[in-house]
Amino acid sequence: VVFQGVEGAYSQKATLAFFGSEVETSAVETWRDAMEAIAEGKADYAVLPIENSTAGIVAQNYDLLLEYDVSIVGEQVIRIQHALLANQGAELSDIKTVYSHPQALMQCSCYLEQTHSQWEKKAMRNTAEAALKVRNDKDISQAAIADIQNAEIYDLQVLEEAIQDNKDNETRFIIVSGEKKFLKTADKVSLCFELPNETGSLYHTLSHFIFNGLNMTKIESRPRPGKNWDYRFFIDFQGNLEQEAVQNALLGLKEETESFKILGNYKAWA
Amino acid sequence: VVFQGVEGAYSQKATLAFFGSEVETSAVETWRDAMEAIAEGKADYAVLPIENSTAGIVAQNYDLLLEYDVSIVGEQVIRIQHALLANQGAELSDIKTVYSHPQALMQCSCYLEQTHSQWEKKAMRNTAEAALKVRNDKDISQAAIADIQNAEIYDLQVLEEAIQDNKDNETRFIIVSGEKKFLKTADKVSLCFELPNETGSLYHTLSHFIFNGLNMTKIESRPRPGKNWDYRFFIDFQGNLEQEAVQNALLGLKEETESFKILGNYKAWA
Repeated sequence: VVFQGVEGAYSQKATLAFFGSEVETSAVETWRDAMEAIAEGKADYAVLPIENSTAGIVAQNYDLLLEYDVSIVGEQVIRIQHALLANQGAELSDIKTVYSHPQALMQCSCYLEQTHSQWEKKAMRNTAEAALKVRNDKDISQAAIADIQNAEIYDLQVLEEAIQDNKDNETRFIIVSGEKKFLKTADKVSLCFELPNETGSLYHTLSHFIFNGLNMTKIESRPRPGKNWDYRFFIDFQGNLEQEAVQNALLGLKEETESFKILGNYKAWA
Repeated sequence: VVFQGVEGAYSQKATLAFFGSEVETSAVETWRDAMEAIAEGKADYAVLPIENSTAGIVAQNYDLLLEYDVSIVGEQVIRIQHALLANQGAELSDIKTVYSHPQALMQCSCYLEQTHSQWEKKAMRNTAEAALKVRNDKDISQAAIADIQNAEIYDLQVLEEAIQDNKDNETRFIIVSGEKKFLKTADKVSLCFELPNETGSLYHTLSHFIFNGLNMTKIESRPRPGKNWDYRFFIDFQGNLEQEAVQNALLGLKEETESFKILGNYKAWA
């Protein structure tokens, strides 16, 4: 199973939570690399963050789901508690620069803007990579925002715990496979389609869910690359592909939309 | 009319396009400062970017619309053509660092990642501020990504034109007032509501649009601050608040949602 980042990344934590501690994990540099690894058959699964309860969707991963021929086979929600980590001997008053992933910086914006607005904030590809950088640079003016377990992994000290704005901060990860796998016990469908920006197109489309009694749990729109003001919609709804109501709705949607794609049918995290 | 940035910002361009060249404009440092200025009556209107056709919504401005008691009174779409600007005498091979707004960096990601992946990318609050910084630093290894007119304003030279991925790149700006103004000729309603993450809640809500024959043109969801996996929805639909179908739908929505708010009824940009 591939995840993006280095040892100690939240994606690794989600991987272990979903597959158990015996699973063989491998770190890659970017989310795209994770998709490539399963597309090329080098890994069976990739685990990618898709949405955070404070900062919103991870837009790039929605876009990657369309670019690669993969399917979502599961989801895992984990609690995200960010800690401020620094080198041994550093004090809070020594810190001048803080490194983390842009999403993590956003999730700690009250702490960073109100209490430490003078700190320089620098974006890294991953929270655990930020911890690794601080350890390698051995500079007491640097801190990383990352999961507290990185203190132990990278021999750093914890200057502050749980600095994220929302104390119940959670991230939802998707488990992606290079093979099409629709599970019999699945109860959640994720799909995507594109619509021209025409009067009534969104109206007609959503009516397929409503008239078939299907419960949408999420709807996201993203700009369609290269087509101004046309949208790509990502919709989650409750159901299994073997149900008649689901098949009816999908048939109607497929006829009235463009680039229609079922992203997965899997067991919802509850 | 207040806009965020400095002389030459795209927001200023949108302001002049909407109000005409005679309007008195004033620059503020942040989008929040623009909202404060109209809330305190220091300005009549604020012009804020809300969505780009390549990079998607400007999430912070959606959130600010809820935080301040303001209304949208109009919208303006302008074409965004990013140029690479540098100090006089600099050549493309001299450039090591490129400054711009994170959205502009995203809009030029093909150019930056494929052609110049070795350049360091640094985030500024505004594209025109990036041009100003490059001018002030007088360092030939620096470049800014900004509107081409900043070359003239800040005495910079144009190294490349139209480097954004999407040649038809456009941004939609909203015109916001501190007073509630619903125009008689308005044909677009923007509203917002929050929903608990319960089975069927989104289903019931959207049916008010469909059963009243109202055409939704946009739906966005944002996480609800401090409430995990509850969502705030932003919906645009065609209509005027004086129409009976609109009043029926709003009445139903108000009863079944939380924090229901009409953000504006204004003339859609066509």
